[in-house]
Amino acid sequence: MNYYGNPITRLIEEFSGLPGIGGKSAQRLAFYIINMPREKAFSLASAITEARENVRYCSICCNLTDEDPCPICSNLKRDHKTIMVVEDPRDMAAYEKTKQYHGLYHVLHGAISPMLGIGPQEIKIKELLHRLQKEEIEEVILATNPNVEGEATAMYISRILKPLQIKVTRIANGVPVGGDLEYVDEITLSRALEGRREI
Amino acid sequence: MNYYGNPITRLIEEFSGLPGIGGKSAQRLAFYIINMPREKAFSLASAITEARENVRYCSICCNLTDEDPCPICSNLKRDHKTIMVVEDPRDMAAYEKTKQYHGLYHVLHGAISPMLGIGPQEIKIKELLHRLQKEEIEEVILATNPNVEGEATAMYISRILKPLQIKVTRIANGVPVGGDLEYVDEITLSRALEGRREI
Repeated sequence: MNYYGNPITRLIEEFSGLPGIGGKSAQRLAFYIINMPREKAFSLASAITEARENVRYCSICCNLTDEDPCPICSNLKRDHKTIMVVEDPRDMAAYEKTKQYHGLYHVLHGAISPMLGIGPQEIKIKELLHRLQKEEIEEVILATNPNVEGEATAMYISRILKPLQIKVTRIANGVPVGGDLEYVDEITLSRALEGRREI
Repeated sequence: MNYYGNPITRLIEEFSGLPGIGGKSAQRLAFYIINMPREKAFSLASAITEARENVRYCSICCNLTDEDPCPICSNLKRDHKTIMVVEDPRDMAAYEKTKQYHGLYHVLHGAISPMLGIGPQEIKIKELLHRLQKEEIEEVILATNPNVEGEATAMYISRILKPLQIKVTRIANGVPVGGDLEYVDEITLSRALEGRREI
């Protein structure tokens, strides 16, 4: 398969190893990089090295960050009495984009999944408990994904938080805004009905 | 948009600049890299730098290579009397995969396209002529793409090669193997009919 010489072949192989990039895309990317201005190619390479080198978990919320504590945990303007528990830094980013939430986060880095062999010890639940004992928290919002693993994780966390007498809430299920009722599944429709509110 | 800290944001931006990678894929790739083993991430970065640094055009066939002349041009077992003219190194790789062609290549790095302002001077036609004057070539096979630009390029090259008295051929048009006649366009069907052979 070495039609192009070693450096290109190696680059194509490295790219093929990334998620969502198949052989053809890897080839296209490799050729794009060879034709890029030198400094742009080097800047991409250094961004990879730098990110891998300098990014760590925030010691408070376990979010990925280059400064510890992360900008959200160290922001005194935010509500330090509310923690939203999410599975992944991307979920945190999704909620940040709404600009409607001003509390803190806790990133679990996964969800409980017996199928994949992920138990409560494998995700950052211990760190959450530790945090609740140290800080004065009034509400924990469980914003794990609305799927089997996310629900199980939310259930598990709500149970172990019971003794701490902290208010624990779960984000609402319902029909997505802009959606078409016709295409919404039955469980979501039932949940939307259960969660109906007076207007 | 800086929800993750600078190194991750920068990496996401760098990835978004690559062809075919949108915002969400860039994010997924960046997170994948952060969770990669250190040495794998560094190896990806070095593959980028190395490829950009060491890859050049072969001084004979203009293929991309890290050694000059390229492995194909310097392979004495190949037929040095036949040159296949292709638009792109990927086209060369596509023909190499067939294992049916054993001659040399000439890579144009583009096709003539007045729409995009690419004239004969912008692609490696000069280098091809130079080569035909120096080397003893018996046949030039035009394997540019079967589209408007590729046909125009093939036509142009065949005309300027006329005076040199070298055999010039064009790869056949016809129905692709494994295809379904029903879905083949009219021009291809007509060409397949024109090019029919006795069996």
